[in-house]
Amino acid sequence: MASLLCPALVLFAARLSGFAVGLLVLFWVLHPLLMVIGFILLSGEVFAAILVHRWLPGSMGLKKSVHLGLQGVALASGIFGIWTKFQGKDGIVANFYSLHSWMGLICISLFGIQWLLGFLNFWHRREAKIARIKILPWHVFLGLYTYALAVATAETGLLEKLAFIQSKRNNVSKHSTESLLVNSLGLFLAMLSGFVILAAVSPKYGYHTLQSRQH
Amino acid sequence: MASLLCPALVLFAARLSGFAVGLLVLFWVLHPLLMVIGFILLSGEVFAAILVHRWLPGSMGLKKSVHLGLQGVALASGIFGIWTKFQGKDGIVANFYSLHSWMGLICISLFGIQWLLGFLNFWHRREAKIARIKILPWHVFLGLYTYALAVATAETGLLEKLAFIQSKRNNVSKHSTESLLVNSLGLFLAMLSGFVILAAVSPKYGYHTLQSRQH
Repeated sequence: MASLLCPALVLFAARLSGFAVGLLVLFWVLHPLLMVIGFILLSGEVFAAILVHRWLPGSMGLKKSVHLGLQGVALASGIFGIWTKFQGKDGIVANFYSLHSWMGLICISLFGIQWLLGFLNFWHRREAKIARIKILPWHVFLGLYTYALAVATAETGLLEKLAFIQSKRNNVSKHSTESLLVNSLGLFLAMLSGFVILAAVSPKYGYHTLQSRQH
Repeated sequence: MASLLCPALVLFAARLSGFAVGLLVLFWVLHPLLMVIGFILLSGEVFAAILVHRWLPGSMGLKKSVHLGLQGVALASGIFGIWTKFQGKDGIVANFYSLHSWMGLICISLFGIQWLLGFLNFWHRREAKIARIKILPWHVFLGLYTYALAVATAETGLLEKLAFIQSKRNNVSKHSTESLLVNSLGLFLAMLSGFVILAAVSPKYGYHTLQSRQH
């Protein structure tokens, strides 16, 4: 794919979409800020950070530390975002009925498992090299799957939020500026995920590079 | 990934999830049947059909014909599903306001472009071999992206439908059997997409095989 692909352009497109998503969330409401910016953008940045690592000076160990650290912050944001939902007047049962919440719980569980396995592998790097090399493609696949699922979950969250607003306030038109804003946010998010995953899997900067540079 | 992966098991898991999704749609309502079964399951089967092609006797040309044909039926189902939405009393404007509809239109457009390019390439196979080989990874990436986006769109559709039912009938509890059914459907769909994409990208049966068998 490398011959047709300009990696810098894909990275730029991913950054630009990420910027648009962040800006739209800021303009809309502050509530989903933590989930979208903390969880998705940060986590996405880490996938894109595979590209950054190429011109970031330092060892493979440093690059892995940055990856682990940023994903840790993203995970913490996600957990905090869900925790705030437990603080509502109705507690757990009232908030965890929808498809959005179910998908979100699966996302955070997968993310947590991935992070824990990554953490353990990172600290035992000398011991089981062959096992690590065998696990790497699974780590990449499950990581990208979790990322895509998080984006799908965010899309359902946007739709749920908008439906909730429209049912509460009867004067909100289906063609209002707010609807337009939320829909645009959803589309940018879908676009962003495409660029991030493309940047992650493209041979020149993806896990093929990571594999060949394993030492 | 091949060493850790049992392709038959992944295929079986994909089939099982697909069967569960189909069954749940049947139990729920007949309306989304066309979109989910026609568009997603059929299109997903085609990705899984990359595996089937290995033990399907015949030439690469036959395998490509089957791929093209099945994707054509999936595309037709999708277009027909959208067309039925135009038949409502309010027409286009009333039905195409939501994030779900916007995402759906992007999906069907991408799908249509992919299919058209595949069709043209298929009929001009002798003429521009190098161009085709260069385009193949893009076809695979954009195809899988469109598939994932279709699944995300379906998730928003399920949520939209349920929110609509709940706002119409006040006696529908948030913890009703119907909610449970729709949420389970959403989760199976998410699971299915993971297995289908895994089957499509796993080295032994994925596009690596396709690339090495190009002739």
